[in-house]
Amino acid sequence: MATHHFEPSIYYTALGTYEPVLHIESGDTVATTTVDNSGRDAEDQPVTGGGNPQTGPFYIQGAAPGDTLAVYFDRVIPNRKIGRTATVVAPNVLDPYYVAAGLPKNSGAEWEIDVDEWTATLISPKTRLGDFCLPLEPMVGCFGVAAQGGQAISAVTSAEHGGNMDYRGFCQGATVYFPVFTEGALFFLGDGHAVQGDGEIVGTGIEISFDVEFTVNLIKDKRIHWPRGENEDYIFTAGNARPLDQAVQHATTEMVHWLIELGLEANEPHILLGQCVEYDVGNVFDPAYTMICKVKKSILRDIGLNIKPAL
Amino acid sequence: MATHHFEPSIYYTALGTYEPVLHIESGDTVATTTVDNSGRDAEDQPVTGGGNPQTGPFYIQGAAPGDTLAVYFDRVIPNRKIGRTATVVAPNVLDPYYVAAGLPKNSGAEWEIDVDEWTATLISPKTRLGDFCLPLEPMVGCFGVAAQGGQAISAVTSAEHGGNMDYRGFCQGATVYFPVFTEGALFFLGDGHAVQGDGEIVGTGIEISFDVEFTVNLIKDKRIHWPRGENEDYIFTAGNARPLDQAVQHATTEMVHWLIELGLEANEPHILLGQCVEYDVGNVFDPAYTMICKVKKSILRDIGLNIKPAL
Amino acid sequence: MATHHFEPSIYYTALGTYEPVLHIESGDTVATTTVDNSGRDAEDQPVTGGGNPQTGPFYIQGAAPGDTLAVYFDRVIPNRKIGRTATVVAPNVLDPYYVAAGLPKNSGAEWEIDVDEWTATLISPKTRLGDFCLPLEPMVGCFGVAAQGGQAISAVTSAEHGGNMDYRGFCQGATVYFPVFTEGALFFLGDGHAVQGDGEIVGTGIEISFDVEFTVNLIKDKRIHWPRGENEDYIFTAGNARPLDQAVQHATTEMVHWLIELGLEANEPHILLGQCVEYDVGNVFDPAYTMICKVKKSILRDIGLNIKPAL
Amino acid sequence: MATHHFEPSIYYTALGTYEPVLHIESGDTVATTTVDNSGRDAEDQPVTGGGNPQTGPFYIQGAAPGDTLAVYFDRVIPNRKIGRTATVVAPNVLDPYYVAAGLPKNSGAEWEIDVDEWTATLISPKTRLGDFCLPLEPMVGCFGVAAQGGQAISAVTSAEHGGNMDYRGFCQGATVYFPVFTEGALFFLGDGHAVQGDGEIVGTGIEISFDVEFTVNLIKDKRIHWPRGENEDYIFTAGNARPLDQAVQHATTEMVHWLIELGLEANEPHILLGQCVEYDVGNVFDPAYTMICKVKKSILRDIGLNIKPAL
Repeated sequence: MATHHFEPSIYYTALGTYEPVLHIESGDTVATTTVDNSGRDAEDQPVTGGGNPQTGPFYIQGAAPGDTLAVYFDRVIPNRKIGRTATVVAPNVLDPYYVAAGLPKNSGAEWEIDVDEWTATLISPKTRLGDFCLPLEPMVGCFGVAAQGGQAISAVTSAEHGGNMDYRGFCQGATVYFPVFTEGALFFLGDGHAVQGDGEIVGTGIEISFDVEFTVNLIKDKRIHWPRGENEDYIFTAGNARPLDQAVQHATTEMVHWLIELGLEANEPHILLGQCVEYDVGNVFDPAYTMICKVKKSILRDIGLNIKPAL
Repeated sequence: MATHHFEPSIYYTALGTYEPVLHIESGDTVATTTVDNSGRDAEDQPVTGGGNPQTGPFYIQGAAPGDTLAVYFDRVIPNRKIGRTATVVAPNVLDPYYVAAGLPKNSGAEWEIDVDEWTATLISPKTRLGDFCLPLEPMVGCFGVAAQGGQAISAVTSAEHGGNMDYRGFCQGATVYFPVFTEGALFFLGDGHAVQGDGEIVGTGIEISFDVEFTVNLIKDKRIHWPRGENEDYIFTAGNARPLDQAVQHATTEMVHWLIELGLEANEPHILLGQCVEYDVGNVFDPAYTMICKVKKSILRDIGLNIKPAL
Repeated sequence: MATHHFEPSIYYTALGTYEPVLHIESGDTVATTTVDNSGRDAEDQPVTGGGNPQTGPFYIQGAAPGDTLAVYFDRVIPNRKIGRTATVVAPNVLDPYYVAAGLPKNSGAEWEIDVDEWTATLISPKTRLGDFCLPLEPMVGCFGVAAQGGQAISAVTSAEHGGNMDYRGFCQGATVYFPVFTEGALFFLGDGHAVQGDGEIVGTGIEISFDVEFTVNLIKDKRIHWPRGENEDYIFTAGNARPLDQAVQHATTEMVHWLIELGLEANEPHILLGQCVEYDVGNVFDPAYTMICKVKKSILRDIGLNIKPAL
Repeated sequence: MATHHFEPSIYYTALGTYEPVLHIESGDTVATTTVDNSGRDAEDQPVTGGGNPQTGPFYIQGAAPGDTLAVYFDRVIPNRKIGRTATVVAPNVLDPYYVAAGLPKNSGAEWEIDVDEWTATLISPKTRLGDFCLPLEPMVGCFGVAAQGGQAISAVTSAEHGGNMDYRGFCQGATVYFPVFTEGALFFLGDGHAVQGDGEIVGTGIEISFDVEFTVNLIKDKRIHWPRGENEDYIFTAGNARPLDQAVQHATTEMVHWLIELGLEANEPHILLGQCVEYDVGNVFDPAYTMICKVKKSILRDIGLNIKPAL
């Protein structure tokens, strides 16, 4: 259960079978950094190109196809003062006729990030929004394992292996589970957001570099189909696809699988989900959209299921 | 500002230009009842057919196309002890190959509703879920005004006029705004749920008859495109369409319109929404899906917008 | 088997349970006219408002829910010289980012229709297309029966009852079958196009008034789910929905039903369709999109199915 | 303008930046073979795994990002007697409730391919379809260049680089154009079908190994966004995405680009497409669906555009 301090020097913009940057054991923790979506680091200097450059891949010893990789985010925090966003809602998120009538130009905006005050404040452009200020909610936009079937899939999209899901719930304190498709799993992460609205509808969160600490745990011979996660209050599943309807199908089906693994049978997962399921929108901007299906742990405990602490 | 006590004797299963059951004034309150989705009343007796039979239509004096109708839910509460749900997630909400492998049969379930304890408890079938118990969250599944362009649109689906949106936020304390398409607006409501998971994914909430009290307010010469709403904490808009992506487009565009009406300009609504928009899934079961786009009132007040109390 | 000469004086813009304009018998033929999408008649005079005003409804004696109505188009021909189109591809048919970059303005275009030469020629605006000339392919854009469940559904959209399907194959010589939802079926028709590209992607065909002759035949106790049709070479089914994927599902499922009715069993319709199905795009512009699923009659005859002449 | 006779010994199941199997010049022809979707060769022996294994990649000297690669299919012909199909329409192509009611089992079917008679005949299972016989229409299901941005994308799906488009028009005599994303372009091909219905709705065409001969031509500094093609009668574009609506958007937008390159301006491509565009469905089975947008060359010549013979 070592802690590795890893300083990245190479970044990938696809999640595939690349040369690992570090070999780690199940149970190990990695303290590292991520650059922002455009490749700028903690000094706000461009150290690589754009496209959600990823730190990693990290090779987890013993991981093999058919396993599941658990990643716990011990620490997820911006490591510089300046964050940036786009300033126009993406045309795929607005009515086509509204778009055809003309959208504002994307000028870009800058935000001051204050981790002591735990705020993000709009500093330019100057608008009627004034010193528009939001509490920080740091989250990891893109992370996951090497893609299925020997593919290398761009860090701007997502699939069964994770990727650019842009879900606000992927934050400090969350555990995320990925199906392993490749020897060593090959874990990547990047694209930190200091704050993000649901759906990442302007195409960015407040894009920023991060200090990150994560701990991996390998679950041998455990096959899942889509990313899963949990936090103190919920278990959840992620479906990534277009249209959003299909993301709903993937996430919901994966949740039915999970409830069956927890001991429910036949129509029991259905009856349960019918009256207590919750959905969160991950992203509705990227090539694949993300829908989250979640259930309160308290409800699962109430009906007697054995909800263990997250790995 | 009269209060009308109205006992329905006729129910419609489409929202169109039918003979009004009552003429009321802007500011008036109506205390009435709704039957459940299958036409059963407070005595659990079938008094009409299925298909979300609607109480109404109520004719609001002076309402005309181009106006907006505000409906405040003063009271929304189950008025009998038995509620019913389906017991299988709808096949359009699950992966097609999972569905093809075989789903459980829909046996139907019964729930005991206790408004004193504020609980819904599964009483049949007997399953591993035991006495599965959830807190009540009474909400109105289907309501709205006579549809656009002289249409009569089924109470199992939804569009610009509202209808079967099945959103959990349409509950006591919410104000909902509808575009008026017809003289008198012609307001309908029905399809009460004692509890419902997001998305109404088994095709039902806990279906039950309701006592309802609502107050209408007419906003003359105010044109909106899609239903809007507000509660103590949020303003929100509803988009109804398939795929869910299109519902996102309708709801988001309507919210941009609203923010512009509140005084923002150019890219300001976009910058604001980008980092603080939230989405709720209404339904992903009905012929039209429903997506809710919402913004915290506290954020709008922080930037100096004049957020008045709801009508 | 009378022939009725019917001159319309009232037009509806929704397909619902309106007062019939004429009662006819199964086997009867009606010779009538339709105005164009904007309500202009053979003299190019506005005689009613826009929105695909419909001639009808025609009440077919004896038709009842659970029956099928067959409509044969004996004659479908423009009855004036001027037709009109929009001049910009609809924003829902183009990439959102392409739309956001700015589309040309819709100026409207006029076309000269020559039924002797069987041509449509662009006469304004003057463009690099010159005297752009296409052969006539007159087709009926919107037609069908009163909608399901007592609904009145706008003539700009479509569903199980037909409506605004905008399919090029709905032309002279085609027989179209509709499920009957209402006593008398209540048949409507309008929205003639002299020519139309697949998908009606500018939102119009060459819009024009028509002389139409059609013959109805009632098939008692024959239940279909979606419109069907046939011509000399093909049988086909229509699915109307968004997204187009769902229209594919409806049309394909209806074709499987049809093949089973023709005597195939188990996986036989599947094997057959797999290697010889054809799809045509109806419309990808209207609120509901239309997909056509079709199979060559020659193939069905080759495998010994009894393909009778159309009704 | 050499002709290379190339015998494959390695196959890839993703289209990415792999070691080229052959370096060729623009203008060269390659005569080679492809195995079927499951990896069986001309002797019907398994020589590699399943997943649409691809012959290639072929490195085209001088090709660089920003160029276009033209591939002409000189010869596309089955090279063995046995072909195979699935026997059930895929559940994503049928109504969800129809699927939930139970589909037939997929038993697999075998077909005898006779290139002298130019027929495919169902030989097993024995069904009411008898000796179901269709004319051959050999086509290449999956082909394209190394994917965009250093990705390796599975040969079961498609994107801007081509891939598994399963369009019946990709046959002998067609020229197909791909955007080049990588040095050498890296052309792959495989997944031959002796016959296929539109949409590949059972998830297979008649899967078979092929003898293929193709000629490449490099167009320097010519940037296209999506695959394009032409044959004697049509120019066409391919869009690959879900839902099919989005594939329509990609294909239509690419066609507008093409018409502008041919000399049209402003609303001219729109007016033209509006009344003469045609769409073909490529596949509606794979992870990305394919829609083809096409225009008759004769129409383009009629309005004076310079339509050169294909490369």
